[in-house]
Amino acid sequence: MSQKKIITIVGAGMMGSAMTIPARDNGHSVRLVGTPLDEHIISRVRRDGYHPTLKEQLPDGVEFYSVADMAAAMSGADLIIGGVSSFGVDWFSQEVLPLLQPGQNVLSVTKGLQNYPDGRLGTFPALLAERLPATLRDRISFSAIGGPCTSYELARRRQTMVYFCGEDAAAVASAKEMLATAYYHITPTADVLGLECCVAMKNAYALGVSMAIGLWGGADECQGFNPQAALFGQSCREVTRLIRHLGADTDLVANLPFAGDLYVTIFGGRTRRLGTLLGQGKSMAEAEAMLSGVTLESVAITRRVAAALRAQAAAGKVQPADYPLLMHIDDVINDRCPAAIAWDTMR
Amino acid sequence: MSQKKIITIVGAGMMGSAMTIPARDNGHSVRLVGTPLDEHIISRVRRDGYHPTLKEQLPDGVEFYSVADMAAAMSGADLIIGGVSSFGVDWFSQEVLPLLQPGQNVLSVTKGLQNYPDGRLGTFPALLAERLPATLRDRISFSAIGGPCTSYELARRRQTMVYFCGEDAAAVASAKEMLATAYYHITPTADVLGLECCVAMKNAYALGVSMAIGLWGGADECQGFNPQAALFGQSCREVTRLIRHLGADTDLVANLPFAGDLYVTIFGGRTRRLGTLLGQGKSMAEAEAMLSGVTLESVAITRRVAAALRAQAAAGKVQPADYPLLMHIDDVINDRCPAAIAWDTMR
Repeated sequence: MSQKKIITIVGAGMMGSAMTIPARDNGHSVRLVGTPLDEHIISRVRRDGYHPTLKEQLPDGVEFYSVADMAAAMSGADLIIGGVSSFGVDWFSQEVLPLLQPGQNVLSVTKGLQNYPDGRLGTFPALLAERLPATLRDRISFSAIGGPCTSYELARRRQTMVYFCGEDAAAVASAKEMLATAYYHITPTADVLGLECCVAMKNAYALGVSMAIGLWGGADECQGFNPQAALFGQSCREVTRLIRHLGADTDLVANLPFAGDLYVTIFGGRTRRLGTLLGQGKSMAEAEAMLSGVTLESVAITRRVAAALRAQAAAGKVQPADYPLLMHIDDVINDRCPAAIAWDTMR
Repeated sequence: MSQKKIITIVGAGMMGSAMTIPARDNGHSVRLVGTPLDEHIISRVRRDGYHPTLKEQLPDGVEFYSVADMAAAMSGADLIIGGVSSFGVDWFSQEVLPLLQPGQNVLSVTKGLQNYPDGRLGTFPALLAERLPATLRDRISFSAIGGPCTSYELARRRQTMVYFCGEDAAAVASAKEMLATAYYHITPTADVLGLECCVAMKNAYALGVSMAIGLWGGADECQGFNPQAALFGQSCREVTRLIRHLGADTDLVANLPFAGDLYVTIFGGRTRRLGTLLGQGKSMAEAEAMLSGVTLESVAITRRVAAALRAQAAAGKVQPADYPLLMHIDDVINDRCPAAIAWDTMR
């Protein structure tokens, strides 16, 4: 049994909140802080412990904090879990990083990659480290969670295998010791870039595979599994190329945590719905309207990585033809063309 | 448009018969020959062209042959498609190979690996080449089809991406030219061992992933996607290890046709049902009785490869601990223990 610690989770969305479950099951003190967007969630869980989007009772003993009480929530914590989405990274950088104390390591559930004007792609742990106030530089370690895990199944304690990645092996090991349970299995890895690339890209490619459902899932018993599987295979090829191109560790490429992650994401809610609608020929504007206008991680990451690849291509550093599916997904979500796979370009 | 050829398909099961569709769409003369087990299929398709297990009308112009007319069916053919399952390989070796004429290349849809008493694992194309009558030695090329393709979706012309593998690049290119259509996309590869390993093992591991459905697919909205994805990832790790261990080309490992193939197989019929039943705690005998006692490719390949790995382990050539999921599937289907994943052994 691990030592009892104080864990503060910043962000009361589904994944951040689901992390309360392994944390409390291991007996730690757990503080859940909402972002400015989570006020309604915090007020509800304070009332009766029920999380309205996770649709699950949070465990007894979690302490809930409004964003106004962030400093108190973080004070004395042994581990900060960054529970924001990629859309909250700038907010997290501005509001949370300055409150850190030396030795308070951060473990993020955020999925995505940061693109820079020159076409470079970087990880969020690296971005957060860059944005640390000068006084904290090199005194905080940033780690991240990757691998297939839906928040609602973690909250229901279904068997789950994830990776924790970080350059600071001791920080990763410490986070693993705090959070590993009989249902939450953690493999440490130092390959931050490789894992974060898998984590981010599975959302983009889940959109691509889901397009096949809209394009070829018929009214008969055919559900378009052949085309789905063809695009699943193409996704693996492209992400392997991308990881190698970015220079990440090749052992992780061979193990390809991407594939299991893609598998679970295809069954996720809104990315699958969006892909299916686009595959059926809807424009992005129509599809977004049907999905209540929420911008998805899958859309954001596709746009970011496609922009980066185009910038790199302009500098002669990459061939967009190595990523035909990703570039097509980007064309479709930017309404440059309807969904239609040019099979002869897939390789 | 490719030149018109004569293509003889031996085996009128679902996949062999589905191959009539791209073959006829390309205008070739197509002959479909039943094995001794296919007499009822041949008599039905002769009557009205409807294939009773594929549940689809075969294209006009296919000529149907009973097994008694095998020699006539093969005479003058430009390509022989071996359409038998792994259970028909010995029959194919004895009855079909001796009828081949020099230059009649063989393209197989058979999925599996051959295990030898010393623990060696070989491909079926290699096995068939070994079993050729001496007069034909080196005068026939053997190729094989791999990659995600369900017969019923191919028969309905759904977009499909497969690999054709073979050591004879000209024979592979010729088969590709004969069979590629606007919906049947073919990537040639010389890595026979790597591809055949993917093709074979996806059946074994689909059984493993399906066990998660029985073990953790709940009555609530949880379908056990986290544990399914965990075992999906574990499957990719183990098959990557196996392919490397067998010495196959590593580029194919990185591209991992296995992942897309596993994806489509998990949604296949009987392997998924068997895995789910075993996951629910049924013994193999109970599960087989519920599935009408048909032995599945997934069961056969698991037993073969587990036996090979045990023989290799006895000779100090492999660590069974590198294949914890496969060895567990083998234990379960041999009723040595009920389905239960030892997560700490997965790596």
